[in-house]
Amino acid sequence: MSTVNAALRAPATGDRVRIGIVGGTGYTGVELLRLLAQHPRAELRAITSRKEAGMPVAEMFPSLRGAVSLAFSDPAGAGLEDCDVVFFATPHGVAMEAAPRLLAAGVRLIDLAADFRLKDPAVFEQWYRMPHGCTDILAEAVYGLPEVNREAIRRARVIGLPGCYPTSVQLALKPLLAAGAVDPLHLIADCKSGVSGAGRKAEVNILFAEASDSLKAYGVSGHRHHPEIVQGLQAIAGTPVGLVFTPHLTPMIRGIHATVYARITREMDFQSLFEEHYRGEPFVDVMPAGSTPDTRSVRGANTCRLAVHRPQGGDTLTVLSVIDNLVKGAAGQAVQAMNLMFDLPETCGLGQVALLP
Amino acid sequence: MSTVNAALRAPATGDRVRIGIVGGTGYTGVELLRLLAQHPRAELRAITSRKEAGMPVAEMFPSLRGAVSLAFSDPAGAGLEDCDVVFFATPHGVAMEAAPRLLAAGVRLIDLAADFRLKDPAVFEQWYRMPHGCTDILAEAVYGLPEVNREAIRRARVIGLPGCYPTSVQLALKPLLAAGAVDPLHLIADCKSGVSGAGRKAEVNILFAEASDSLKAYGVSGHRHHPEIVQGLQAIAGTPVGLVFTPHLTPMIRGIHATVYARITREMDFQSLFEEHYRGEPFVDVMPAGSTPDTRSVRGANTCRLAVHRPQGGDTLTVLSVIDNLVKGAAGQAVQAMNLMFDLPETCGLGQVALLP
Amino acid sequence: MSTVNAALRAPATGDRVRIGIVGGTGYTGVELLRLLAQHPRAELRAITSRKEAGMPVAEMFPSLRGAVSLAFSDPAGAGLEDCDVVFFATPHGVAMEAAPRLLAAGVRLIDLAADFRLKDPAVFEQWYRMPHGCTDILAEAVYGLPEVNREAIRRARVIGLPGCYPTSVQLALKPLLAAGAVDPLHLIADCKSGVSGAGRKAEVNILFAEASDSLKAYGVSGHRHHPEIVQGLQAIAGTPVGLVFTPHLTPMIRGIHATVYARITREMDFQSLFEEHYRGEPFVDVMPAGSTPDTRSVRGANTCRLAVHRPQGGDTLTVLSVIDNLVKGAAGQAVQAMNLMFDLPETCGLGQVALLP
Amino acid sequence: MSTVNAALRAPATGDRVRIGIVGGTGYTGVELLRLLAQHPRAELRAITSRKEAGMPVAEMFPSLRGAVSLAFSDPAGAGLEDCDVVFFATPHGVAMEAAPRLLAAGVRLIDLAADFRLKDPAVFEQWYRMPHGCTDILAEAVYGLPEVNREAIRRARVIGLPGCYPTSVQLALKPLLAAGAVDPLHLIADCKSGVSGAGRKAEVNILFAEASDSLKAYGVSGHRHHPEIVQGLQAIAGTPVGLVFTPHLTPMIRGIHATVYARITREMDFQSLFEEHYRGEPFVDVMPAGSTPDTRSVRGANTCRLAVHRPQGGDTLTVLSVIDNLVKGAAGQAVQAMNLMFDLPETCGLGQVALLP
Repeated sequence: MSTVNAALRAPATGDRVRIGIVGGTGYTGVELLRLLAQHPRAELRAITSRKEAGMPVAEMFPSLRGAVSLAFSDPAGAGLEDCDVVFFATPHGVAMEAAPRLLAAGVRLIDLAADFRLKDPAVFEQWYRMPHGCTDILAEAVYGLPEVNREAIRRARVIGLPGCYPTSVQLALKPLLAAGAVDPLHLIADCKSGVSGAGRKAEVNILFAEASDSLKAYGVSGHRHHPEIVQGLQAIAGTPVGLVFTPHLTPMIRGIHATVYARITREMDFQSLFEEHYRGEPFVDVMPAGSTPDTRSVRGANTCRLAVHRPQGGDTLTVLSVIDNLVKGAAGQAVQAMNLMFDLPETCGLGQVALLP
Repeated sequence: MSTVNAALRAPATGDRVRIGIVGGTGYTGVELLRLLAQHPRAELRAITSRKEAGMPVAEMFPSLRGAVSLAFSDPAGAGLEDCDVVFFATPHGVAMEAAPRLLAAGVRLIDLAADFRLKDPAVFEQWYRMPHGCTDILAEAVYGLPEVNREAIRRARVIGLPGCYPTSVQLALKPLLAAGAVDPLHLIADCKSGVSGAGRKAEVNILFAEASDSLKAYGVSGHRHHPEIVQGLQAIAGTPVGLVFTPHLTPMIRGIHATVYARITREMDFQSLFEEHYRGEPFVDVMPAGSTPDTRSVRGANTCRLAVHRPQGGDTLTVLSVIDNLVKGAAGQAVQAMNLMFDLPETCGLGQVALLP
Repeated sequence: MSTVNAALRAPATGDRVRIGIVGGTGYTGVELLRLLAQHPRAELRAITSRKEAGMPVAEMFPSLRGAVSLAFSDPAGAGLEDCDVVFFATPHGVAMEAAPRLLAAGVRLIDLAADFRLKDPAVFEQWYRMPHGCTDILAEAVYGLPEVNREAIRRARVIGLPGCYPTSVQLALKPLLAAGAVDPLHLIADCKSGVSGAGRKAEVNILFAEASDSLKAYGVSGHRHHPEIVQGLQAIAGTPVGLVFTPHLTPMIRGIHATVYARITREMDFQSLFEEHYRGEPFVDVMPAGSTPDTRSVRGANTCRLAVHRPQGGDTLTVLSVIDNLVKGAAGQAVQAMNLMFDLPETCGLGQVALLP
Repeated sequence: MSTVNAALRAPATGDRVRIGIVGGTGYTGVELLRLLAQHPRAELRAITSRKEAGMPVAEMFPSLRGAVSLAFSDPAGAGLEDCDVVFFATPHGVAMEAAPRLLAAGVRLIDLAADFRLKDPAVFEQWYRMPHGCTDILAEAVYGLPEVNREAIRRARVIGLPGCYPTSVQLALKPLLAAGAVDPLHLIADCKSGVSGAGRKAEVNILFAEASDSLKAYGVSGHRHHPEIVQGLQAIAGTPVGLVFTPHLTPMIRGIHATVYARITREMDFQSLFEEHYRGEPFVDVMPAGSTPDTRSVRGANTCRLAVHRPQGGDTLTVLSVIDNLVKGAAGQAVQAMNLMFDLPETCGLGQVALLP
């Protein structure tokens, strides 16, 4: 099962990719719907929710009235096996259960949860507190960060899409680690996330009256994205990586701002390094020297904006990295991966300009 | 000058409308840029700002990096007279000054400020505290609310685009007044606006630390949009209108929620009235009975969502109306008018799905 | 049981009122703790939560670290019957169950929920969907709005504390109805509330990512506070009252802004009417003519600020009324009632200045 | 002029400190008023504003209606020289100009701006772009951080009150530097501030529609508080200090969250170190191991809450420090200093419990 199946469905030019979404009642789900409803080569065939089966999607999310006419359907009868690709916008553990059957039917998978991110099943089990049910598929799964794995994504049957924090931090550090310019053992990523990153779950700590007009760190001693970031950075650096990672909950709906600190070990022109490293990347924007990107500059857009600083000319670099956690940090990156998998232009359907103000 | 000039520039099929924007440094300006950058038939030729001439637009608004490559230019040398249409996203009084010259050059005008909204120059002067400089052009100008004036807009040389509050209130009351179903003399419009409605001006009262986590009424005894709403409602009703209008400043960036109260004078099925009245309107969404639309359901979209209620079966109707003040309340409505003026599909470039969450 | 018990515990001068709180894990509970911790004549004896028994209160609410050393205790062993007064900051239905036993022990009760607000048990049952368990106590209970019922509150054994919306609306209309100045049959109260008014409950619709940067009406066709407001207004007016009441959820933590519309039936100087009506009231502030109070001006304070307007000199008055829903709309009003009940200065412990910005 | 004047006015027991405030129209000014209005030993004599002279303070800040009856007065006739202490809540440069005259009159000074913070006039001039007008007074001025300089503050004639960021960072690092436990040359302070920290100034970048629902870094390559923090940390450590300091603007009104990273050089029990170091400090709260304080837990209170973490048992400590920038970061700390200077209990008038939610 580890080689690409020649029979993988690929739509002919001008055809539309037939798409299923499993679990569309969360924020990554509705964001996928927003993007796919405007995608010229996407044909949304089914969106499933066991609990809400029968309810029109636009009844739950009135923003989709007039744009998405589908109703939620029960996964069993949704016809997912007739799709070209199925997105999993589900809690962790769902995709791995459904994967064997769908792959056998020739369907490709993009999992927005964590089932196929961590290469070591033991690490997965430690952080997600469940056994990994299909380690053979995990072995062939591709980590879906196009700026790192573009060619592998094109050929992949299964994508483990990066988490939102890992996307922001890896893109910030990739030029430096690839160039061997910083000490890989003492990296610090101080990350600030909007509240939608916690999902659409009925929990007290993310109520408006709790999370508004306040800010706090969480997961300081350990967060699930830590091993994922370290795994990704090590793959880039080719050496062991040490990272202190501090996520913060901040009173905004969308957006991640990663402030990353790295000690310089090799002198070079860091602004040029970043500009050259990302030249031609459609969704990474290296800003001019001295810039301080704000998260709203990518609100609703599939863009990561980066700025590299060397405060007071010292020995430490400060890299600023902003993404929309639901777009480049989730649904947009998923569509970007889909475009690669189906030989569509990588930017197809992803031309949204950020909503500012 | 009051008939449509046969020589009005109209782009051939497939051609692009050549567009100029005067005053692009405010919120309606950047919103026009966002929409036009994604409009398949728009060619943005110039955007002017005397103060910022030479600065790339995307330097002021990084959200436009990669989408808009123009720099602000001085109005004098911007070549506005070579455009098919010029939008004025300026303070009140600017469009009326430039209008004669541009019209003489065959350019059509869409003014997002108030210069061409109020038909009575004396009323304009009373509320905007400046004389009206070109009352002949005012006489031919068309009030740019497509759901009321669609055919006139198609032929217009000059559009006075409605204000944001007036759009939300007129669309809420139009079916009722047109049907003679309510007392036109005792209407109440209790409106709540996001802070971007106040513009991008350095004023203390709209600072984050002033306007956040708080709510207040303003302009209770008189607001510039009051005469405009009354004028529009009277045109619809064909009779005098009495209106109490209370605007409120609320801690959100975008969005207007109008809550409109009207005393019933003629019994009918009001839900059906609304549905039939707006059948076929691409940008007015009559929601199912019992709905309560939220402003975020139209965030970034050119849609007005309406719901009509009759609390406790009493003699008063409550109509809920939500728009994005910068889109259906300004830039989106301007593009909608442009589409009509240039025989493009009315929805062209306006398919954005609202950003939720 | 319907007369005041002569043996009601009253603390001697200088003594402290012994206080119990049932259900301290919600927002009205923590707000009571904030106020009582700074009250010079309050002795907090017990705070109960069946679910959190044993947990220090300050562990759940770190804002109380150093100010409240109590832990939650199980209601059974909390010694509530040894208190002078017990506050119920509980879901509806809890206070009525505990009331007979506590009253028999000579304890006085202040219920912040709805058990003792509605005089007609049938109305209670219709809106709260549970039978009323102790209608005899309901009969003697006093509606705890000091500006209406001050003397009755002093002597009461049981207080049904007003809801937040009802407080804001009744204080806005009281001078007008008492003076017979407006049409009581066609009142409109358009109310905007912060999200804390919905309580500290794990529900999706009040998540930060749902309620932030958006605004919506709810309960348009019927809301539990409607019969309570009508009951209160009728008591003030002495005649039947007709009211359209529209609550809105707005993106702020605290605060209610009621915008109340009433048709004038009797001419007078309304500014003077309000000023004279509320002269001497410590917690009602009639603002100067032309004012528009913002909710932050009462954030954290037990104050209601009012402004009366007559837009364009027409036949309709617009009254603006702001309170902090957790203070004058709940916990502060509860302490005010307690002060009256125990012959303390009415303002004792309630001198907090609003937190602005 | 560098020794304490024996004739310094000190109020007799029970007497009130006579207080003047220069420049009360900003956020630190209104916060001083809020605190002093509730301070049992404060007598507010004058508050000056050249621009607003004659306007009642409560007209500008309605939150003060009923609590502060003073009007702004012109500095010239305000009688400041008859006060015991004058607070300067002014732009930088004002206090230094007025200081000689007031000191000569026996008045003590607390400057909330930067005039007396930086010991080296050249550093002041570099960062504040103005010459320092009275270096002799600067030489005697005491840096007003009570947890570092308590005894010196008691005797001081002139206090240079710390900035908000410096307060949060110094309190976070003091135990570690004093114990020689971390590498002083590679400290990182990643700080997140509410928007009120930018002051009550009409500037576009802090408008609600700009700063809401977004987050950005600023001053990455250099910020005025950097030299102040370094100066303070060096005084604590007794050795040179290297610091990377990144301030971020976050969408909340009040609050600073400092996330401070330090490399361990000497092993010890860091939780105990912090607890013992701050034992007895009334306004520093070392939270239990594993805590993550939120900024709202100190909203409106003069408290700094700290938590120390050692992520994954590595070689780097992460210290979390939260304050209200307007209280412990400005006005509250100023009152704390005043209490020390006039032999009042240090906590006098500073018992406010944080407003949560």
